[in-house]
Amino acid sequence: MRIDIITVLPEMLESPLGCSILKRAQDKGLAQLVVHNLRDYTTNRHRKVDDYPFGGDAGMVMQVEPVDRCIAALKAERNYDEVIFTAPDGEVFNQRMANQLSMLENIIILCGHYKGIDYRIREHLITREISVGDYVLTGGEMPAAIIADAIVRLIPGAIGDEQSALTDSFQDNLLEPPIYTRPADYNGWRVPDILLSGHEAKIAQWKHEQAVERTRRLRPDLLED
Amino acid sequence: MRIDIITVLPEMLESPLGCSILKRAQDKGLAQLVVHNLRDYTTNRHRKVDDYPFGGDAGMVMQVEPVDRCIAALKAERNYDEVIFTAPDGEVFNQRMANQLSMLENIIILCGHYKGIDYRIREHLITREISVGDYVLTGGEMPAAIIADAIVRLIPGAIGDEQSALTDSFQDNLLEPPIYTRPADYNGWRVPDILLSGHEAKIAQWKHEQAVERTRRLRPDLLED
Repeated sequence: MRIDIITVLPEMLESPLGCSILKRAQDKGLAQLVVHNLRDYTTNRHRKVDDYPFGGDAGMVMQVEPVDRCIAALKAERNYDEVIFTAPDGEVFNQRMANQLSMLENIIILCGHYKGIDYRIREHLITREISVGDYVLTGGEMPAAIIADAIVRLIPGAIGDEQSALTDSFQDNLLEPPIYTRPADYNGWRVPDILLSGHEAKIAQWKHEQAVERTRRLRPDLLED
Repeated sequence: MRIDIITVLPEMLESPLGCSILKRAQDKGLAQLVVHNLRDYTTNRHRKVDDYPFGGDAGMVMQVEPVDRCIAALKAERNYDEVIFTAPDGEVFNQRMANQLSMLENIIILCGHYKGIDYRIREHLITREISVGDYVLTGGEMPAAIIADAIVRLIPGAIGDEQSALTDSFQDNLLEPPIYTRPADYNGWRVPDILLSGHEAKIAQWKHEQAVERTRRLRPDLLED
Protein backbone atom coordinates (compact mmCIF):
# COMPACT_ATOMS: atom_id res chain seq x y z
CA MET A 1 0.00 0.00 0.00
CA ARG A 2 1.15 3.52 -0.80
CA ILE A 3 0.09 6.67 1.07
CA ASP A 4 1.03 10.09 -0.32
CA ILE A 5 0.68 12.95 2.15
CA ILE A 6 0.52 16.55 0.90
CA THR A 7 1.41 19.20 3.46
CA VAL A 8 2.90 22.66 3.99
CA LEU A 9 4.74 21.31 7.06
CA PRO A 10 6.58 18.18 5.91
CA GLU A 11 8.98 18.45 8.87
CA MET A 12 6.06 17.94 11.27
CA LEU A 13 5.54 14.41 9.93
CA GLU A 14 9.17 13.31 10.14
CA SER A 15 9.17 11.63 13.51
CA PRO A 16 5.62 10.20 13.46
CA LEU A 17 6.23 8.49 10.10
CA GLY A 18 9.83 7.57 10.91
CA CYS A 19 9.24 5.63 14.15
CA SER A 20 7.68 2.48 15.46
CA ILE A 21 5.17 0.54 13.32
CA LEU A 22 5.16 2.98 10.42
CA LYS A 23 8.93 2.73 10.11
CA ARG A 24 8.91 -1.06 10.41
CA ALA A 25 6.12 -1.46 7.84
CA GLN A 26 8.11 0.66 5.39
CA ASP A 27 11.33 -1.24 6.12
CA LYS A 28 9.50 -4.52 5.44
CA GLY A 29 8.08 -3.19 2.16
CA LEU A 30 4.48 -3.44 3.40
CA ALA A 31 3.76 0.27 3.08
CA GLN A 32 5.23 3.23 1.30
CA LEU A 33 4.69 6.65 2.87
CA VAL A 34 5.68 9.63 0.78
CA VAL A 35 5.45 13.21 2.05
CA HIS A 36 5.12 16.04 -0.48
CA ASN A 37 5.82 19.67 0.30
CA LEU A 38 2.95 21.65 -1.21
CA ARG A 39 5.30 24.59 -1.77
CA ASP A 40 7.15 22.52 -4.39
CA TYR A 41 4.03 22.90 -6.55
CA THR A 42 3.79 26.69 -6.50
CA THR A 43 4.70 28.89 -9.44
CA ASN A 44 5.27 32.14 -7.54
CA ARG A 45 8.65 33.31 -6.32
CA HIS A 46 7.77 33.21 -2.63
CA ARG A 47 6.34 29.69 -2.77
CA LYS A 48 3.14 31.11 -1.29
CA VAL A 49 0.26 28.61 -1.01
CA ASP A 50 -2.36 30.74 0.78
CA ASP A 51 -4.25 34.00 0.44
CA TYR A 52 -6.93 36.06 2.20
CA PRO A 53 -10.49 34.71 2.15
CA PHE A 54 -13.17 36.35 0.04
CA GLY A 55 -15.87 37.95 2.18
CA GLY A 56 -13.65 39.38 4.89
CA ASP A 57 -12.93 36.58 7.36
CA ALA A 58 -9.87 36.36 9.55
CA GLY A 59 -7.19 33.78 8.77
CA MET A 60 -5.54 32.55 5.58
CA VAL A 61 -6.95 30.05 3.09
CA MET A 62 -5.03 27.41 1.12
CA GLN A 63 -5.29 28.07 -2.64
CA VAL A 64 -6.59 25.70 -5.31
CA GLU A 65 -3.71 25.89 -7.75
CA PRO A 66 -0.78 24.27 -5.91
CA VAL A 67 -3.06 21.51 -4.59
CA ASP A 68 -4.44 20.86 -8.08
CA ARG A 69 -0.91 20.73 -9.53
CA CYS A 70 0.37 18.37 -6.85
CA ILE A 71 -2.56 15.95 -7.12
CA ALA A 72 -2.34 16.03 -10.94
CA ALA A 73 1.37 15.19 -10.78
CA LEU A 74 0.68 12.21 -8.51
CA LYS A 75 -2.23 10.97 -10.61
CA ALA A 76 -0.02 11.06 -13.71
CA GLU A 77 2.14 8.38 -12.03
CA ARG A 78 -0.49 5.95 -10.76
CA ASN A 79 -4.20 5.50 -10.00
CA TYR A 80 -5.50 6.51 -6.61
CA ASP A 81 -8.40 4.86 -4.78
CA GLU A 82 -9.13 7.91 -2.63
CA VAL A 83 -8.02 11.53 -2.27
CA ILE A 84 -8.67 12.23 1.39
CA PHE A 85 -8.90 15.61 3.08
CA THR A 86 -8.65 15.73 6.87
CA ALA A 87 -11.38 18.13 7.96
CA PRO A 88 -13.14 18.59 11.30
CA ASP A 89 -16.49 18.39 9.47
CA GLY A 90 -15.71 15.20 7.52
CA GLU A 91 -17.01 11.66 8.11
CA VAL A 92 -15.90 10.62 11.57
CA PHE A 93 -12.94 8.21 11.37
CA ASN A 94 -13.42 4.90 13.15
CA GLN A 95 -12.01 1.39 13.20
CA ARG A 96 -14.38 0.16 10.51
CA MET A 97 -13.15 2.86 8.15
CA ALA A 98 -9.54 2.00 9.05
CA ASN A 99 -10.27 -1.62 8.07
CA GLN A 100 -11.71 -0.52 4.71
CA LEU A 101 -8.90 1.89 3.91
CA SER A 102 -6.24 -0.70 4.82
CA MET A 103 -7.37 -2.77 1.83
CA LEU A 104 -6.78 -0.01 -0.73
CA GLU A 105 -3.67 0.29 -2.88
CA ASN A 106 -2.93 3.98 -3.26
CA ILE A 107 -4.34 6.90 -1.33
CA ILE A 108 -3.55 10.59 -1.08
CA ILE A 109 -4.08 12.52 2.14
CA LEU A 110 -4.18 16.31 1.88
CA CYS A 111 -3.45 18.09 5.17
CA GLY A 112 -5.32 21.34 5.71
CA HIS A 113 -3.59 24.24 7.38
CA TYR A 114 -4.20 27.93 8.09
CA LYS A 115 -7.89 28.83 8.37
CA GLY A 116 -8.91 26.16 5.89
CA ILE A 117 -8.72 25.30 2.20
CA ASP A 118 -10.49 26.82 -0.76
CA TYR A 119 -13.84 25.03 -0.98
CA ARG A 120 -13.35 24.28 -4.68
CA ILE A 121 -10.59 21.82 -3.70
CA ARG A 122 -13.15 19.93 -1.64
CA GLU A 123 -15.77 20.05 -4.40
CA HIS A 124 -13.56 19.02 -7.32
CA LEU A 125 -10.43 17.23 -6.12
CA ILE A 126 -11.26 15.45 -2.87
CA THR A 127 -13.09 12.11 -2.92
CA ARG A 128 -13.46 11.62 0.83
CA GLU A 129 -13.39 13.96 3.83
CA ILE A 130 -12.40 12.41 7.12
CA SER A 131 -12.43 13.87 10.61
CA VAL A 132 -10.44 12.18 13.36
CA GLY A 133 -12.63 13.84 15.99
CA ASP A 134 -14.70 16.86 17.06
CA TYR A 135 -11.85 19.19 17.89
CA VAL A 136 -9.87 21.81 16.04
CA LEU A 137 -6.16 21.42 15.42
CA THR A 138 -3.53 23.68 13.91
CA GLY A 139 -3.30 21.52 10.82
CA GLY A 140 -4.11 18.19 9.26
CA GLU A 141 -0.65 16.71 9.82
CA MET A 142 -1.40 14.85 13.07
CA PRO A 143 -4.73 13.56 11.69
CA ALA A 144 -2.87 12.30 8.60
CA ALA A 145 -0.32 10.54 10.82
CA ILE A 146 -3.15 8.99 12.83
CA ILE A 147 -4.98 7.74 9.75
CA ALA A 148 -1.72 6.29 8.38
CA ASP A 149 -0.92 4.57 11.69
CA ALA A 150 -4.43 3.14 12.15
CA ILE A 151 -4.45 1.78 8.59
CA VAL A 152 -0.89 0.50 8.26
CA ARG A 153 -0.95 -1.47 11.51
CA LEU A 154 -3.83 -3.52 10.06
CA ILE A 155 -1.80 -4.67 7.05
CA PRO A 156 -0.92 -8.33 7.71
CA GLY A 157 2.66 -8.54 8.96
CA ALA A 158 2.88 -4.91 10.13
CA ILE A 159 2.58 -5.67 13.81
CA GLY A 160 4.52 -8.55 15.23
CA ASP A 161 1.69 -10.35 16.87
CA GLU A 162 -1.40 -10.40 14.67
CA GLN A 163 -3.50 -11.92 17.37
CA SER A 164 -2.96 -8.71 19.24
CA ALA A 165 -4.71 -6.56 16.59
CA LEU A 166 -7.66 -8.97 16.45
CA THR A 167 -8.40 -8.50 20.15
CA ASP A 168 -8.11 -4.70 20.06
CA SER A 169 -10.96 -2.53 21.26
CA PHE A 170 -13.65 -1.91 18.60
CA GLN A 171 -12.80 -4.89 16.39
CA ASP A 172 -15.81 -6.67 17.90
CA ASN A 173 -17.62 -3.52 19.11
CA LEU A 174 -16.51 -4.27 22.68
CA LEU A 175 -13.99 -2.39 24.77
CA GLU A 176 -11.13 -4.48 26.06
CA PRO A 177 -11.31 -6.09 29.51
CA PRO A 178 -8.82 -4.90 32.15
CA ILE A 179 -5.33 -6.34 31.64
CA TYR A 180 -2.58 -6.86 34.18
CA THR A 181 1.04 -7.88 34.22
CA ARG A 182 3.64 -8.68 36.87
CA PRO A 183 3.97 -8.19 39.77
CA ALA A 184 0.72 -9.74 41.03
CA ASP A 185 0.93 -7.48 44.07
CA TYR A 186 2.35 -3.97 43.78
CA ASN A 187 2.39 -2.18 47.12
CA GLY A 188 -0.92 -3.83 47.99
CA TRP A 189 -2.56 -3.21 44.59
CA ARG A 190 -3.48 -6.76 43.61
CA VAL A 191 -4.34 -8.46 40.32
CA PRO A 192 -7.79 -10.17 40.38
CA ASP A 193 -7.42 -13.75 41.68
CA ILE A 194 -9.22 -15.26 38.71
CA LEU A 195 -6.37 -14.25 36.36
CA LEU A 196 -3.87 -16.11 38.54
CA SER A 197 -6.08 -19.22 38.81
CA GLY A 198 -4.93 -21.03 35.67
CA HIS A 199 -8.57 -21.93 34.76
CA GLU A 200 -8.54 -21.05 31.07
CA ALA A 201 -12.27 -21.30 30.49
CA LYS A 202 -13.15 -19.28 33.58
CA ILE A 203 -10.59 -16.64 32.64
CA ALA A 204 -12.05 -16.36 29.13
CA GLN A 205 -15.54 -15.99 30.60
CA TRP A 206 -14.35 -13.33 33.09
CA LYS A 207 -12.69 -11.36 30.30
CA HIS A 208 -15.82 -11.42 28.17
CA GLU A 209 -18.01 -10.34 31.11
CA GLN A 210 -15.63 -7.52 31.93
CA ALA A 211 -15.55 -6.38 28.29
CA VAL A 212 -19.35 -6.33 28.11
CA GLU A 213 -19.67 -4.62 31.48
CA ARG A 214 -17.10 -1.94 30.62
CA THR A 215 -18.70 -1.31 27.23
CA ARG A 216 -22.19 -1.06 28.76
CA ARG A 217 -20.96 1.40 31.40
CA LEU A 218 -18.55 3.52 29.35
CA ARG A 219 -19.72 3.29 25.74
CA PRO A 220 -23.26 1.91 25.49
CA ASP A 221 -23.49 3.40 21.98
CA LEU A 222 -21.09 0.72 20.68
CA LEU A 223 -23.61 -2.01 21.55
CA GLU A 224 -26.40 -0.40 19.50
CA ASP A 225 -24.71 -0.87 16.11
CA MET B 1 0.61 26.06 31.24
CA ARG B 2 2.86 23.03 31.56
CA ILE B 3 2.22 19.64 29.91
CA ASP B 4 4.40 16.66 30.87
CA ILE B 5 4.19 13.72 28.48
CA ILE B 6 5.36 10.26 29.57
CA THR B 7 6.23 7.86 26.76
CA VAL B 8 8.41 4.93 25.71
CA LEU B 9 8.93 6.61 22.33
CA PRO B 10 10.09 10.17 23.07
CA GLU B 11 11.59 10.44 19.57
CA MET B 12 8.11 10.06 18.06
CA LEU B 13 7.03 13.35 19.61
CA GLU B 14 10.04 15.38 18.50
CA SER B 15 8.67 16.89 15.31
CA PRO B 16 5.01 17.31 16.36
CA LEU B 17 6.01 19.23 19.49
CA GLY B 18 8.86 21.08 17.80
CA CYS B 19 6.92 22.65 14.90
CA SER B 20 4.28 25.21 14.18
CA ILE B 21 2.00 26.48 16.97
CA LEU B 22 3.43 24.23 19.67
CA LYS B 23 6.93 25.52 19.00
CA ARG B 24 5.79 29.14 18.86
CA ALA B 25 3.79 28.84 22.08
CA GLN B 26 6.85 27.44 23.83
CA ASP B 27 9.13 30.12 22.37
CA LYS B 28 6.73 32.80 23.63
CA GLY B 29 6.65 31.26 27.11
CA LEU B 30 2.91 30.48 26.88
CA ALA B 31 3.32 26.72 27.24
CA GLN B 32 5.98 24.34 28.46
CA LEU B 33 5.99 20.84 26.95
CA VAL B 34 8.28 18.33 28.58
CA VAL B 35 8.70 14.77 27.30
CA HIS B 36 9.83 12.05 29.70
CA ASN B 37 11.26 8.72 28.63
CA LEU B 38 9.56 6.08 30.77
CA ARG B 39 12.69 3.92 30.56
CA ASP B 40 14.53 6.49 32.68
CA TYR B 41 12.31 5.37 35.57
CA THR B 42 13.10 1.65 35.44
CA THR B 43 15.34 -0.10 37.94
CA ASN B 44 16.23 -3.15 35.81
CA ARG B 45 19.36 -3.40 33.71
CA HIS B 46 17.53 -3.68 30.39
CA ARG B 47 15.30 -0.66 31.06
CA LYS B 48 12.34 -2.95 30.40
CA VAL B 49 8.90 -1.35 31.01
CA ASP B 50 6.58 -4.17 29.90
CA ASP B 51 5.81 -7.82 30.61
CA TYR B 52 3.40 -10.58 29.53
CA PRO B 53 -0.25 -10.25 30.58
CA PHE B 54 -1.72 -12.49 33.27
CA GLY B 55 -4.35 -14.83 31.86
CA GLY B 56 -2.62 -15.70 28.60
CA ASP B 57 -3.37 -12.90 26.15
CA ALA B 58 -1.17 -11.95 23.23
CA GLY B 59 0.82 -8.70 23.38
CA MET B 60 2.85 -6.96 26.07
CA VAL B 61 1.53 -4.84 28.93
CA MET B 62 3.12 -1.71 30.42
CA GLN B 63 4.05 -2.28 34.07
CA VAL B 64 2.93 -0.27 37.08
CA GLU B 65 6.29 0.44 38.66
CA PRO B 66 8.06 2.73 36.18
CA VAL B 67 4.85 4.72 35.61
CA ASP B 68 4.34 5.09 39.36
CA ARG B 69 7.95 6.21 39.82
CA CYS B 70 7.77 8.75 37.00
CA ILE B 71 4.48 10.28 38.14
CA ALA B 72 5.72 10.41 41.75
CA ALA B 73 8.88 12.22 40.64
CA LEU B 74 6.83 14.82 38.75
CA LYS B 75 4.36 15.29 41.60
CA ALA B 76 7.26 15.90 43.99
CA GLU B 77 8.07 19.02 41.92
CA ARG B 78 4.62 20.59 41.49
CA ASN B 79 0.88 19.99 41.75
CA TYR B 80 -0.95 18.55 38.78
CA ASP B 81 -4.56 19.27 37.86
CA GLU B 82 -4.98 16.07 35.87
CA VAL B 83 -3.06 12.89 35.10
CA ILE B 84 -4.45 11.90 31.71
CA PHE B 85 -4.19 8.53 30.01
CA THR B 86 -4.92 8.33 26.30
CA ALA B 87 -7.10 5.24 25.87
CA PRO B 88 -9.51 4.22 23.12
CA ASP B 89 -12.15 3.57 25.79
CA GLY B 90 -11.80 6.91 27.58
CA GLU B 91 -14.09 9.96 27.47
CA VAL B 92 -14.28 11.13 23.88
CA PHE B 93 -12.15 14.25 23.38
CA ASN B 94 -13.96 17.25 21.91
CA GLN B 95 -13.63 21.00 21.61
CA ARG B 96 -15.44 21.63 24.88
CA MET B 97 -12.94 19.44 26.73
CA ALA B 98 -10.08 21.23 24.95
CA ASN B 99 -11.48 24.55 26.21
CA GLN B 100 -11.62 23.23 29.79
CA LEU B 101 -8.15 21.70 29.74
CA SER B 102 -6.64 24.88 28.25
CA MET B 103 -7.46 26.66 31.51
CA LEU B 104 -5.47 24.27 33.72
CA GLU B 105 -1.94 24.90 34.97
CA ASN B 106 -0.15 21.56 34.98
CA ILE B 107 -1.16 18.30 33.39
CA ILE B 108 0.50 14.96 32.80
CA ILE B 109 -0.33 12.84 29.75
CA LEU B 110 0.68 9.17 29.88
CA CYS B 111 0.97 7.55 26.45
CA GLY B 112 -0.03 3.90 26.30
CA HIS B 113 1.92 1.51 24.14
CA TYR B 114 2.16 -2.23 23.46
CA LYS B 115 -1.07 -4.09 24.13
CA GLY B 116 -2.08 -1.73 26.91
CA ILE B 117 -1.17 -0.71 30.43
CA ASP B 118 -1.60 -2.55 33.71
CA TYR B 119 -5.12 -1.72 34.85
CA ARG B 120 -3.87 -0.74 38.32
CA ILE B 121 -2.25 2.34 36.76
CA ARG B 122 -5.69 3.38 35.53
CA GLU B 123 -7.35 2.67 38.88
CA HIS B 124 -4.82 4.35 41.13
CA LEU B 125 -2.71 6.87 39.22
CA ILE B 126 -4.83 8.26 36.39
CA THR B 127 -7.42 10.98 37.04
CA ARG B 128 -8.89 11.21 33.54
CA GLU B 129 -9.00 8.87 30.56
CA ILE B 130 -9.37 10.51 27.17
CA SER B 131 -9.94 8.97 23.75
CA VAL B 132 -9.28 11.03 20.64
CA GLY B 133 -11.55 8.74 18.62
CA ASP B 134 -12.94 5.24 18.03
CA TYR B 135 -9.88 3.74 16.40
CA VAL B 136 -6.84 1.82 17.56
CA LEU B 137 -3.35 3.24 17.19
CA THR B 138 0.09 1.85 17.84
CA GLY B 139 0.54 4.08 20.84
CA GLY B 140 -0.69 7.13 22.69
CA GLU B 141 1.95 9.47 21.29
CA MET B 142 -0.11 10.94 18.42
CA PRO B 143 -3.17 11.33 20.67
CA ALA B 144 -0.99 13.16 23.21
CA ALA B 145 0.31 15.46 20.46
CA ILE B 146 -3.25 16.12 19.34
CA ILE B 147 -4.48 16.93 22.84
CA ALA B 148 -1.49 19.25 23.35
CA ASP B 149 -2.10 21.01 20.02
CA ALA B 150 -5.86 21.42 20.56
CA ILE B 151 -5.30 22.84 24.06
CA VAL B 152 -2.27 25.05 23.48
CA ARG B 153 -3.71 26.81 20.43
CA LEU B 154 -6.56 28.06 22.67
CA ILE B 155 -4.19 29.83 25.08
CA PRO B 156 -4.54 33.56 24.34
CA GLY B 157 -1.62 34.69 22.19
CA ALA B 158 -0.73 31.23 20.88
CA ILE B 159 -2.20 31.74 17.43
CA GLY B 160 -1.57 34.99 15.64
CA ASP B 161 -5.13 35.85 14.88
CA GLU B 162 -7.38 35.17 17.84
CA GLN B 163 -10.47 35.94 15.88
CA SER B 164 -9.58 32.94 13.80
CA ALA B 165 -9.91 30.50 16.73
CA LEU B 166 -13.24 32.01 17.74
CA THR B 167 -14.79 31.23 14.36
CA ASP B 168 -13.46 27.65 14.23
CA SER B 169 -15.84 24.75 13.74
CA PHE B 170 -17.44 23.52 16.99
CA GLN B 171 -16.86 26.71 19.02
CA ASP B 172 -20.53 27.56 18.42
CA ASN B 173 -21.70 24.00 17.60
CA LEU B 174 -21.81 24.89 13.91
CA LEU B 175 -19.52 23.68 11.16
CA GLU B 176 -17.79 26.39 9.19
CA PRO B 177 -19.32 27.75 6.00
CA PRO B 178 -17.39 27.19 2.74
CA ILE B 179 -14.43 29.53 2.35
CA TYR B 180 -12.70 30.68 -0.81
CA THR B 181 -9.63 32.63 -1.78
CA ARG B 182 -8.14 34.00 -5.01
CA PRO B 183 -8.48 33.51 -7.90
CA ALA B 184 -12.24 34.07 -8.18
CA ASP B 185 -12.24 31.84 -11.26
CA TYR B 186 -9.88 28.86 -11.46
CA ASN B 187 -10.26 27.01 -14.76
CA GLY B 188 -13.99 27.65 -14.65
CA TRP B 189 -14.45 26.75 -10.98
CA ARG B 190 -16.01 29.96 -9.66
CA VAL B 191 -16.38 31.49 -6.21
CA PRO B 192 -20.07 32.19 -5.28
CA ASP B 193 -21.04 35.68 -6.50
CA ILE B 194 -22.32 36.77 -3.09
CA LEU B 195 -18.78 36.66 -1.64
CA LEU B 196 -17.56 39.04 -4.33
CA SER B 197 -20.50 41.44 -3.90
CA GLY B 198 -19.10 43.60 -1.11
CA HIS B 199 -22.47 43.53 0.78
CA GLU B 200 -21.21 42.84 4.28
CA ALA B 201 -24.59 42.10 5.85
CA LYS B 202 -25.68 39.80 3.04
CA ILE B 203 -22.34 37.97 3.15
CA ALA B 204 -22.68 37.46 6.92
CA GLN B 205 -26.19 36.10 6.43
CA TRP B 206 -25.06 33.78 3.62
CA LYS B 207 -22.24 32.43 5.81
CA HIS B 208 -24.58 31.75 8.69
CA GLU B 209 -27.11 29.99 6.42
CA GLN B 210 -24.35 27.88 4.89
CA ALA B 211 -23.00 26.96 8.32
CA VAL B 212 -26.44 25.90 9.52
CA GLU B 213 -27.20 24.03 6.30
CA ARG B 214 -23.87 22.17 6.35
CA THR B 215 -24.26 21.28 10.02
CA ARG B 216 -27.83 20.04 9.48
CA ARG B 217 -26.75 17.90 6.52
CA LEU B 218 -23.39 16.59 7.77
CA ARG B 219 -23.55 16.64 11.56
CA PRO B 220 -27.15 17.04 12.81
CA ASP B 221 -26.01 15.67 16.19
CA LEU B 222 -24.16 18.94 16.89
CA LEU B 223 -27.46 20.86 16.82
CA GLU B 224 -29.05 18.65 19.50
CA ASP B 225 -26.73 19.71 22.35
